[in-house]
Amino acid sequence: MLLAIPKEEILERQEKFFGILQDKQIDCAVLFSVTDIFYLTGFHFHPTERPIGFFIDPNKQTHLLVPALEHEHAEEFANVNVVHSYPEYPGLRHPMEYFKDALYNAGFEGKTVGYDAIGYGSPSGYRGPVVSDFLSAKEFVSVKGIVEEMRFIKSPNEVELIKESCRWGNLAHRLLQKYSKPGLSEIEITSRASSEATMAMIETLGKDYKPHGSTAFAVFRGQVGPMSAFPHAVTQNIVLKKGDTLVTGAAATVWGYHSELERTMFVQEASKEQEKYFNIMYEAQDVAFRSIRPGIPCSHVEQEVQKYFKEAGVQHLVQHHTGHNIGLLGHEAPFFDLGEETIMQPGMVFTVEPGIYVRGLGGFRHSDTVLVTENGMEMLTYYPRDFASMICN
Amino acid sequence: MLLAIPKEEILERQEKFFGILQDKQIDCAVLFSVTDIFYLTGFHFHPTERPIGFFIDPNKQTHLLVPALEHEHAEEFANVNVVHSYPEYPGLRHPMEYFKDALYNAGFEGKTVGYDAIGYGSPSGYRGPVVSDFLSAKEFVSVKGIVEEMRFIKSPNEVELIKESCRWGNLAHRLLQKYSKPGLSEIEITSRASSEATMAMIETLGKDYKPHGSTAFAVFRGQVGPMSAFPHAVTQNIVLKKGDTLVTGAAATVWGYHSELERTMFVQEASKEQEKYFNIMYEAQDVAFRSIRPGIPCSHVEQEVQKYFKEAGVQHLVQHHTGHNIGLLGHEAPFFDLGEETIMQPGMVFTVEPGIYVRGLGGFRHSDTVLVTENGMEMLTYYPRDFASMICN
Repeated sequence: MLLAIPKEEILERQEKFFGILQDKQIDCAVLFSVTDIFYLTGFHFHPTERPIGFFIDPNKQTHLLVPALEHEHAEEFANVNVVHSYPEYPGLRHPMEYFKDALYNAGFEGKTVGYDAIGYGSPSGYRGPVVSDFLSAKEFVSVKGIVEEMRFIKSPNEVELIKESCRWGNLAHRLLQKYSKPGLSEIEITSRASSEATMAMIETLGKDYKPHGSTAFAVFRGQVGPMSAFPHAVTQNIVLKKGDTLVTGAAATVWGYHSELERTMFVQEASKEQEKYFNIMYEAQDVAFRSIRPGIPCSHVEQEVQKYFKEAGVQHLVQHHTGHNIGLLGHEAPFFDLGEETIMQPGMVFTVEPGIYVRGLGGFRHSDTVLVTENGMEMLTYYPRDFASMICN
Repeated sequence: MLLAIPKEEILERQEKFFGILQDKQIDCAVLFSVTDIFYLTGFHFHPTERPIGFFIDPNKQTHLLVPALEHEHAEEFANVNVVHSYPEYPGLRHPMEYFKDALYNAGFEGKTVGYDAIGYGSPSGYRGPVVSDFLSAKEFVSVKGIVEEMRFIKSPNEVELIKESCRWGNLAHRLLQKYSKPGLSEIEITSRASSEATMAMIETLGKDYKPHGSTAFAVFRGQVGPMSAFPHAVTQNIVLKKGDTLVTGAAATVWGYHSELERTMFVQEASKEQEKYFNIMYEAQDVAFRSIRPGIPCSHVEQEVQKYFKEAGVQHLVQHHTGHNIGLLGHEAPFFDLGEETIMQPGMVFTVEPGIYVRGLGGFRHSDTVLVTENGMEMLTYYPRDFASMICN
């Protein structure tokens, strides 16, 4: 049972990143993205006011700068050659002064330096100088997007972790459906389903399971009854009524990897009108599934879905694109969107979630997580999708 | 029972912000910070690849740009004069093209324009131009930090919401302590305590409760036994053993407002050594409480705590500063830190959490949330702090 990316694969990622830098004639690089640092080092960091920085020096040695309170933790979990630390932020001496020393000592002066951001950024009270303020380089070259693009294509191990995530999202969703009864409130139902699924998950996976995110959960996010017509609404704690349309979401994070499972369900019964819109949405998702294959632009999927919605006469009820890549973040590029020219490739993992929203009645959206394969796609989520299975009794 | 900031107070915040802009001779401004936008409009937004922008035009009209899927939601909850929206990101036409149109139509051309960031930023696959690329202004002036500094001082209503948060953190923590038994795993205990506290919270507060964040929870974050010596560790799902040191955290978000309650506890029994370090930490927290009063720099509190730790001979066991401001984010500036010269003022809400960390034994840290008053401070959290109360039986 795979519950983490092996060290060898982390080191392969670093090699690949170094290779790309070399191809671009970049001598060394500095990264501040917490997600990209986790991807390249295996070190999971909870960002606060205290900055983190990763750098690869001209001798291909890898370094991490962390606050003192993370030093031991980084020594244990980060696949880097050297861990540096600073006492505290803001401190009598700013963390970026320590970063400056570390960069000069590692030979960054006068080099061509790649960077993903001009400095560390956090809304949690951090302020500090940008790298070009304190480092005298030959040239600064943006490498923003390089690691993000490496993350587009998932390895077999990454797909395994996403499948593990799907498994526990499935359980949480099953419990959510079971507990969705008239008279119970949103938080009550989601809290019970999430808690029980989490218990089962940890009993099953044991102590090697590290979420690096959220354990199993299933939620409505306010998408209950007429409010379900607002996609991505926030929790409203609405009490369920017979006949309500419900739009759900369920998943679990496994060593930082996400999946997405969403369903449109109905409390005890659905009207003919609800069934009509459900069926249109269901068919739109099938249209999307059939249009996914490697070698063509992501926009193709969205074009096919929009063509179908237009034929079905519901184009005015559409409020968002068909899906997004998913992995270490819940939403990642590329997107199934009219403006997305990125070519689909085997190993990309997408959500497929065309939706329609009917004021006063509800929202209609399933979301499944799928893997682009050599010939088409493979479903990673496996919860029932059909109308009859979506009635909560 | 107050469960949200009233509309009048939101509009007062806007007036205050406009006044500061006028004092700086700034004609109009653009903000991308999701937290600051919530503070100024009452509109809670879950950031993804889709950008959001707030702007105040030269006629003091307020505007919000959101994706189409949030349009209705923004019309209902955002206290602004105009809601604009764009179809989708990336879209055939980039969202910033819509933003550009809205800014020109609102009279931004040739004006002195304040901005908090050069463009929308999100790790979730967003890319886009910076404002100065598409807007022809007279001058761009950074206003980063203005709203953040307004947020330093909490109003009586904000303090009420933080107190409501403390109440449910207290319950979650009580349950966490009750369920902390040898042989049970971290996630099992925290999941049960969090779920039951959430149930009680929603039954009590009713449907008007909007978390805009997390409902009641209590966690260890991996700080169990010797691993508790790593502050801010991540969940490890360790099984509790008799005599383990535990470092906890409990809270609930109430309309976006946070509090912080952390305790050092012991499973069934504590050794003399554990008691010794506990008492040093306990006294350090008292030292901090006694040193908090308005009119002096935040650094004073840290100086007093470090002086005490030095006298107690444990300075080498300290890994972080004494505390941080708290409100719409879990960590905010200013900090109780040697390098923080901000003057304490009545209405600031801080965590007080000096900690010491002993390799192989555990971490010792309580955290309480306190309000700076006219004469000193008021405790907002109210969980027992003494050694005898910290034994989990």
